[in-house]
Amino acid sequence: MKLATFDAGAGPRLGALTATGDALIDLTATGRADLASMQALIDADEAGLTAARAALDAGPAIPLQDIKLLAPLPCPPQIRDASTAPRHIMNAPVGMRRLGALLQDQPDPGPEEGSIPDIYRAQPIFYITNRFSVAGHGAVIHWPRYSRYMDYELEVAVVIGKGGRDIPATSAMDHVFGFTIFNDFSARDTQLREMQGMLGPAKGKSFDAGNVFGPWIVTRDEIADYRDLRCTAHINGRLATDSRLGEMLHGFEDMIAFISDSETLHPGEIIGGGTVDDGCGLERCEFLSDGDEVALTVEGIGTLVNKVVATS
Amino acid sequence: MKLATFDAGAGPRLGALTATGDALIDLTATGRADLASMQALIDADEAGLTAARAALDAGPAIPLQDIKLLAPLPCPPQIRDASTAPRHIMNAPVGMRRLGALLQDQPDPGPEEGSIPDIYRAQPIFYITNRFSVAGHGAVIHWPRYSRYMDYELEVAVVIGKGGRDIPATSAMDHVFGFTIFNDFSARDTQLREMQGMLGPAKGKSFDAGNVFGPWIVTRDEIADYRDLRCTAHINGRLATDSRLGEMLHGFEDMIAFISDSETLHPGEIIGGGTVDDGCGLERCEFLSDGDEVALTVEGIGTLVNKVVATS
Repeated sequence: MKLATFDAGAGPRLGALTATGDALIDLTATGRADLASMQALIDADEAGLTAARAALDAGPAIPLQDIKLLAPLPCPPQIRDASTAPRHIMNAPVGMRRLGALLQDQPDPGPEEGSIPDIYRAQPIFYITNRFSVAGHGAVIHWPRYSRYMDYELEVAVVIGKGGRDIPATSAMDHVFGFTIFNDFSARDTQLREMQGMLGPAKGKSFDAGNVFGPWIVTRDEIADYRDLRCTAHINGRLATDSRLGEMLHGFEDMIAFISDSETLHPGEIIGGGTVDDGCGLERCEFLSDGDEVALTVEGIGTLVNKVVATS
Repeated sequence: MKLATFDAGAGPRLGALTATGDALIDLTATGRADLASMQALIDADEAGLTAARAALDAGPAIPLQDIKLLAPLPCPPQIRDASTAPRHIMNAPVGMRRLGALLQDQPDPGPEEGSIPDIYRAQPIFYITNRFSVAGHGAVIHWPRYSRYMDYELEVAVVIGKGGRDIPATSAMDHVFGFTIFNDFSARDTQLREMQGMLGPAKGKSFDAGNVFGPWIVTRDEIADYRDLRCTAHINGRLATDSRLGEMLHGFEDMIAFISDSETLHPGEIIGGGTVDDGCGLERCEFLSDGDEVALTVEGIGTLVNKVVATS
């Protein structure tokens, strides 16, 4: 099932995509408390999904063209974002060195062979980002005024269903409600500067609408092997990324086990699996321009499209 | 006004400390929606505070000894934590090098003169931590099983009242609801390891109950100059920290202006001002032991006491 949050003029409502893929069933219209919102459905666990499936079969459907898609969870309880893709881990710091030269009007040192720090192999590396700075499919992303170098990041994220603590990797996928696409828009000049402080990214990642999710959440049962999903990014229609999660150093199973060690995970929390290999412009020292359209497609999930606009 | 969240056996309720400082008025008992919880009061802005003051005058009071204090916001909408105290910024990395030697069974290189990275002077450096991992005064903090080196961090935090975006420093304090004490318990061996990944602290800071706030929130009007407040830590009654916020590189005014640049702040969000100078054991390469009692006192606010217990 593909579950969306949408607005048809009366505020956020929960919808389910029809088999034809071009219309939504308004689940909130059932009047059921467990279908009032995406968070309510996630909290309701299997009972909610059963009710959603019954409503999906009952119709009637609203054409996608008549509604606005919002982020599936317009205000998620929490967002973590990891970094697990080996080539991205190797190439991103190389891109940062090239950007650093650019910012200081020095010659571009050019691409070079990066390496994977041991710690990235030893454990999942992640940070927590601003849960309020969320947008959905179709939203125009206003570039923060403090940044000149804006980038996309193509990620697959899981949404936690059943909460828990000290979750073993072997049963971790039982705690996944579903998958969504995550565009972790990044202000690279800002990020480069602030990461000198050793506390990780902050303003480079957490500006308003910087975390885009969607177009919907695909329930876990629809994804046989997330490592096998083809992930592509198109900038103004040009193919910029063509990748898979296959080689990620730590899968979602390991991430959930690691994060939940002595730490409770709650329904609705989002975990980004990290920028996929070649999944952002930084790796090639290429950045977005005012007005660019970024379309991220993950096989089995859908396509997430946003336009970036510079703030004057 | 000193505002607390407490449990007298019937779940979390909002209370206000009486002038004698040894009892709470149950504000939730008024039945008013804007006094139903700390978050409701913060959301209600001045109208809520006026109602709270009226209820505080009306009584009756419940002795503190008859109730359990919870974190003032048991689940804050978000928690940021900055690092602004110059001696802490100089000494913490020195402590990390000494801890690194200890972990590798190498000789202690001993204390040395640290330095302040330019970026810490140029802008506030901060990260976002787990908003669910919150505890209050009196809570027993269970050391995560993956850590052997536990530490306290003495901080003063502000709680945002009125939300906003692009808030100028000159009016930033109008957006502060009040002040509280923040003990940012830290698993130092874990933090040292994960920060090699460059994305900042994660499991070192965000384990269950790792972020302790309290004993209550003091409203902004009661603190004339937060930089002048004496901050002390006692470990099992021994004075371990005796400091002030006076020299912080960026005050809360600058932090709020910086964070809210192109990014909306919401009522109830917490911003930790950073470990005060000499405000943690790491700076001296001293760590907590199983069963230690940590008491943090900030003049004008109160005393926040917790016991740490190792997980076997």
